[in-house]
Amino acid sequence: MDKRAIGVFDSGLGGLTAVKELRRIAPQENIVYFGDTARVPYGSRGPETILKYAWQDACFLMEQNIKYLIAACGTVSSHVDETFRAHLDVPFCDVIGPASLAAAKGTKTGRIGLIATAASIRSGAYDRALAAIDPSLQVLPKACPLFVPLVEQGLFQKDCEITRLTVEMYLAPLKQQKIDTLILGCTHYPLLAPLIDEFFEGQVLLIDSGRQAVDTAVGDIAALGLSGDGKGESTYFVSDDMDSFVRNAGLFLGAPVDGTVHEIDIEQFEGVKVWKKRS
Amino acid sequence: MDKRAIGVFDSGLGGLTAVKELRRIAPQENIVYFGDTARVPYGSRGPETILKYAWQDACFLMEQNIKYLIAACGTVSSHVDETFRAHLDVPFCDVIGPASLAAAKGTKTGRIGLIATAASIRSGAYDRALAAIDPSLQVLPKACPLFVPLVEQGLFQKDCEITRLTVEMYLAPLKQQKIDTLILGCTHYPLLAPLIDEFFEGQVLLIDSGRQAVDTAVGDIAALGLSGDGKGESTYFVSDDMDSFVRNAGLFLGAPVDGTVHEIDIEQFEGVKVWKKRS
Repeated sequence: MDKRAIGVFDSGLGGLTAVKELRRIAPQENIVYFGDTARVPYGSRGPETILKYAWQDACFLMEQNIKYLIAACGTVSSHVDETFRAHLDVPFCDVIGPASLAAAKGTKTGRIGLIATAASIRSGAYDRALAAIDPSLQVLPKACPLFVPLVEQGLFQKDCEITRLTVEMYLAPLKQQKIDTLILGCTHYPLLAPLIDEFFEGQVLLIDSGRQAVDTAVGDIAALGLSGDGKGESTYFVSDDMDSFVRNAGLFLGAPVDGTVHEIDIEQFEGVKVWKKRS
Repeated sequence: MDKRAIGVFDSGLGGLTAVKELRRIAPQENIVYFGDTARVPYGSRGPETILKYAWQDACFLMEQNIKYLIAACGTVSSHVDETFRAHLDVPFCDVIGPASLAAAKGTKTGRIGLIATAASIRSGAYDRALAAIDPSLQVLPKACPLFVPLVEQGLFQKDCEITRLTVEMYLAPLKQQKIDTLILGCTHYPLLAPLIDEFFEGQVLLIDSGRQAVDTAVGDIAALGLSGDGKGESTYFVSDDMDSFVRNAGLFLGAPVDGTVHEIDIEQFEGVKVWKKRS
């Protein structure tokens, strides 16, 4: 039994949908979460910036004595490369592999839609992962840059006309392309799942990429003999205003914040130097 | 005659609406623009983060041999304090004073609406500036966090139903409160002016805060004997992907980017140390 926490990070609050799932399927695990609220959103940044931020985030969490690291951020997951993975001190999973596998298993027609940030789509990470599983799968991508701000403003109720129209604007081309499976490639998007499901009239399988990553992580942890029997405590770190985090986190967790919250200065973090030295 | 450039900065692209205006009224002036595209948006950050970023931005531009500095960013303008101003090496103006003066002059009923980012509203900067001009003025504020992403996605055409509904959602309370003047407290918002004007049926005076700041700056420059007779060249610096800047800047400039574009790493910038030493 290993009481060390599982580290989870995201560019902001979206990764909390993965924390919610982790709480549900592994309630005995301690969790340390880092949300880079001072630098969110990553999805509109260039590849080098995203990779630098991701490395700082990972280094910070590795200093918190974690046993496993989850990148619960579609944009980070689309950009981490072999160099990044090779330099980590703990086992790691991101959302790409698990979500791709679930989509490949779930599709019947081989026509898989992908919604994500512009940076995630541009990276081609899902295309590569799905092609590696089955080269005959077709990936039909659509960047949805307004979904994150809409969710962060709490506008995801089924009766919200603004969000309904935005869902229609982004997803109409995918409906026309007759997808039967849709990867929600950003951890903010599960909050829009009811509206998305309604748009597709329940005919498209929705893959929650954060949930898939958590399932994979919990399996890995068991296989590695690292499972915990802790109290299931959560500690949250953010890089900007704590009050704003506490106010909004409940939307994603589905319950009020249940642990301590700390503010850190991620930019001053030494991880940058380590990365430069190592690479 | 002073050939040195006017420095203009913003958290991202919004400040380019001020550059457009500066081009129009002072075509002989050289301009150096910095858009902090790697860290946009500032509007959801905490006050300390915003002030730190603003100081880095200002220090970078002061190293470009400028003769005057304009903060063409509502959020920065709401957070710069006397310490910040005291440490600048060049004359400076932000959007708060000029926009407040224009609103105070323009209102007949004294009921002034203010739309801006959440951080700008929270700062109370406009309330203080308007109260200093005339304590009887009433400021009716509304944070509009979705306006920036909508504008950045190019969704500001008059026939865009999503944006029309968002305008209605945010501005209905101000209409009910019977404002006669509205400060557009974010330099992204002028692109939404036609939709906002339509919502108010042309009955509300719209104050473009970036345009007011530019008018003030050009007046200051003339009064200080710093006017230029240059070729009106523009140089743009951004902190993230240049291609994305070039793709989107035209929306704000109303024309394709007309100068050279450079990418810099603003976080590594020494300004931070200077600020710490000086404060």
